[in-house]
Amino acid sequence: MITNKIIDLNSDLGESFGQWQMGNDEAMLKVVSSANIACGFHAGSPEGILKTLKAAKLNNVSIGAHVGYPDLVGFGRRNMDIGSEELIADVIYQIGALTGLAKSIDAEVSYVKPHGALYNTIAHDKRQAMATIDAIRLINPHLVLVALAGSPLISWAKESGLNVVAEAFADRAYHTDGTLVSRKEVGAVLHDPDIVANRMLQLVNEGGLISIEGEFVEIDAGSICVHGDSMGALAMAQRVSQQLQNNGVKIASFTDVINE
Amino acid sequence: MITNKIIDLNSDLGESFGQWQMGNDEAMLKVVSSANIACGFHAGSPEGILKTLKAAKLNNVSIGAHVGYPDLVGFGRRNMDIGSEELIADVIYQIGALTGLAKSIDAEVSYVKPHGALYNTIAHDKRQAMATIDAIRLINPHLVLVALAGSPLISWAKESGLNVVAEAFADRAYHTDGTLVSRKEVGAVLHDPDIVANRMLQLVNEGGLISIEGEFVEIDAGSICVHGDSMGALAMAQRVSQQLQNNGVKIASFTDVINE
Amino acid sequence: MITNKIIDLNSDLGESFGQWQMGNDEAMLKVVSSANIACGFHAGSPEGILKTLKAAKLNNVSIGAHVGYPDLVGFGRRNMDIGSEELIADVIYQIGALTGLAKSIDAEVSYVKPHGALYNTIAHDKRQAMATIDAIRLINPHLVLVALAGSPLISWAKESGLNVVAEAFADRAYHTDGTLVSRKEVGAVLHDPDIVANRMLQLVNEGGLISIEGEFVEIDAGSICVHGDSMGALAMAQRVSQQLQNNGVKIASFTDVINE
Amino acid sequence: MITNKIIDLNSDLGESFGQWQMGNDEAMLKVVSSANIACGFHAGSPEGILKTLKAAKLNNVSIGAHVGYPDLVGFGRRNMDIGSEELIADVIYQIGALTGLAKSIDAEVSYVKPHGALYNTIAHDKRQAMATIDAIRLINPHLVLVALAGSPLISWAKESGLNVVAEAFADRAYHTDGTLVSRKEVGAVLHDPDIVANRMLQLVNEGGLISIEGEFVEIDAGSICVHGDSMGALAMAQRVSQQLQNNGVKIASFTDVINE
Repeated sequence: MITNKIIDLNSDLGESFGQWQMGNDEAMLKVVSSANIACGFHAGSPEGILKTLKAAKLNNVSIGAHVGYPDLVGFGRRNMDIGSEELIADVIYQIGALTGLAKSIDAEVSYVKPHGALYNTIAHDKRQAMATIDAIRLINPHLVLVALAGSPLISWAKESGLNVVAEAFADRAYHTDGTLVSRKEVGAVLHDPDIVANRMLQLVNEGGLISIEGEFVEIDAGSICVHGDSMGALAMAQRVSQQLQNNGVKIASFTDVINE
Repeated sequence: MITNKIIDLNSDLGESFGQWQMGNDEAMLKVVSSANIACGFHAGSPEGILKTLKAAKLNNVSIGAHVGYPDLVGFGRRNMDIGSEELIADVIYQIGALTGLAKSIDAEVSYVKPHGALYNTIAHDKRQAMATIDAIRLINPHLVLVALAGSPLISWAKESGLNVVAEAFADRAYHTDGTLVSRKEVGAVLHDPDIVANRMLQLVNEGGLISIEGEFVEIDAGSICVHGDSMGALAMAQRVSQQLQNNGVKIASFTDVINE
Repeated sequence: MITNKIIDLNSDLGESFGQWQMGNDEAMLKVVSSANIACGFHAGSPEGILKTLKAAKLNNVSIGAHVGYPDLVGFGRRNMDIGSEELIADVIYQIGALTGLAKSIDAEVSYVKPHGALYNTIAHDKRQAMATIDAIRLINPHLVLVALAGSPLISWAKESGLNVVAEAFADRAYHTDGTLVSRKEVGAVLHDPDIVANRMLQLVNEGGLISIEGEFVEIDAGSICVHGDSMGALAMAQRVSQQLQNNGVKIASFTDVINE
Repeated sequence: MITNKIIDLNSDLGESFGQWQMGNDEAMLKVVSSANIACGFHAGSPEGILKTLKAAKLNNVSIGAHVGYPDLVGFGRRNMDIGSEELIADVIYQIGALTGLAKSIDAEVSYVKPHGALYNTIAHDKRQAMATIDAIRLINPHLVLVALAGSPLISWAKESGLNVVAEAFADRAYHTDGTLVSRKEVGAVLHDPDIVANRMLQLVNEGGLISIEGEFVEIDAGSICVHGDSMGALAMAQRVSQQLQNNGVKIASFTDVINE
């Protein structure tokens, strides 16, 4: 039963760039068990990345490479028709850079979570998905891939030999078929911290939650994504963490679980 | 006597960027024993870097990280008043990225040669020199640093525990005190392949060459830098290599020598 | 009859970036009547752009803004799902920058030709097309838009009040319906300078050419795009120009024609 | 006497980049009479710049081109050894881009204020100063140059035929010789809004203020720079504006004064 009672919380961090600040990494690193750290292509400059890595290590938070498209001005959030060979090299480059910075402080990168448009694209686009999978296997096949729960990416990655962790989004509504409600639809994003916290508790305890259509839908997730880029988002993340812990759920990195 | 008869030839490679080509990496990799490969800050995009890495491996050429300032449009050739913490992170990031790409093809980065303005600055500027040295020690203290022969950087790096290889420039004139003749002065750059080849043979055999003032000057160099970014430069590099080999000098990476 | 006997030749220029050279602008400016000059987003750095502008002015060649997506490493050649407001601002910014550089040498930007993926996208995608059209109208409604012959963009732009010039590609095969043969198909690109030159003569004299299916297809084009980024491409451009002029066709910018 | 009673307040705006926000442009545009708007090289992406331009127009605030070095990650704050031809082209490009965006909303760029390291460098470095002056003269000789009060740049620019406005910094201490106290020294930056506001009132009324050495020093300034990038900075700017207006000083752009 213990596996039902451990869950990972992850969040996107290290997204400042030069003089531009984004998010509150210090505060979030006290909430999450896994830090998706930007690698310089959609966000993150080396000095800032290193600072976040040090804080992650200090807080015993697992480190993941938050790889993205080479699109700083677009924050990696728009689809980009990138070739497979280029994508493979871009992903390896980013993981390598983060691994080097981590190594310089005796820390380790243990997983990869693609960012933004790359995340959404590879959930369904097999060509770019396989390029991303190949890149991970080529640089370090022990890296875990964090992927959208219910997406075909999960089986593609598993068939390729990668360890995969599916993730759910704390503040998003789901359809009964397990897919996310599009942000363009009403009710796609949840704003009430208590409702969100209770949904995540149900997710951990029952393996699913209530869909936007009002039915229970199974979501097989080993990690929950929370945000921290605004005061409200940080408060919601803290509420989710407290609610889970108050009900006997341990917050711990999936890396710890896989390695046990 | 054998150490007098082995010399490393190095060249700057991997300097294409996206659709922009620079240099003739394929041809140069048949001439040199060490490839200084750009890491993306002053030149080099991941797909092109990976291509050059594969070619270097195929030709059994040692791989070095050619780290530079974050200045693509200036090709890393202009002085930049960069902070120490930022420089440390930038150098680690670049070495990490190249190391990751190399690892993906079962190759290794064995040395670091700073590029352009960073190379010239750290030859004499202790603050930036120590930042670069610290960066190397933090990510991988086994990496050899290639530094300007006769510069104070060499002792700073050695005192910090790094392995250092001094380099001479094949096509440059030297003063009797061992410093390079400034490019702004007449005669600073040599253009005759035969003269250059013979100077390098003298350098290897006698441990020095004739200065612009006409006297013999000792140059203690473990590597010779040759260029390949034009037809003339490639031909000169080939001429240097042939002249050395025709006279019993073996072209081999200093890494091989250090590891022996 | 005279309108049948004047044609514009245009080519993509100013595509160097910092130390990276591309194309032979000096040679091409002796062949073409219109220069599509990169504006810094997919290619072109200010100093190089200014150099090309000066050479264009010296050769009495019309100047067009070759605006592209913000994608230097991808050379603006991959589709990018960019928002309309961002695209409008990006296009205005690029036209403004080129206009400023042109003004500094008493030259003028007289037209806009979108580049690469933006060119192909707006030929058919109404949202991005209207954003591009709006941008041109907002900064300077007198700028002519160069668009793919036969594409819906032409009527969208005309209905919006822009002057439009349709262009044909010298080295590309066409289907009988007037669309370009995809580069993925055999025979899409023509390599024989004589064949290409004769096709272009037919285009000017008869208002069309022979499709890949072997039938005559009308192509209503006011400009012909030629390339100059390789020795072969330059030679082909020169051959097209000579063949046209040898047969009484005058090479002149559509701007001259519109202004007559 | 009326000229003693009008002063310009300027501030750096438009410094957001893509998803990264910086400053509170909306609030500052209600305080200042002149907006130094970033042009994309050290900060500012086109869509964000356009938004700030629209807000500046709405608030009847004069628009200046805040041109900087091409150094996004360094925010244009570090010295860069850039060639004169490149600097001329960079400055023209940036002014042109901002002018184009302004034109698209029927607004005008009326002055140029260099940013960060470029600002500090050209205050004393004649080569880069003359390049900047040449750039302004080449694109639009009617643009006013805002320069550090007391710096040699002022006479260089006037001798070249430019209109120049000297500026003082509201929150900075001055030496008796009229130079700024270095930020490295204690007391260089003033933090008390009341003290700062009273100093600026004295500056306007008496043409000078009390130096850090305790003596009255003349500062001939036509504009006062205030900051708005933090809550404290915004409050100080508002306090300066109120104190001046409460004492009969009109806040108005120097452009209005020059044009009267």
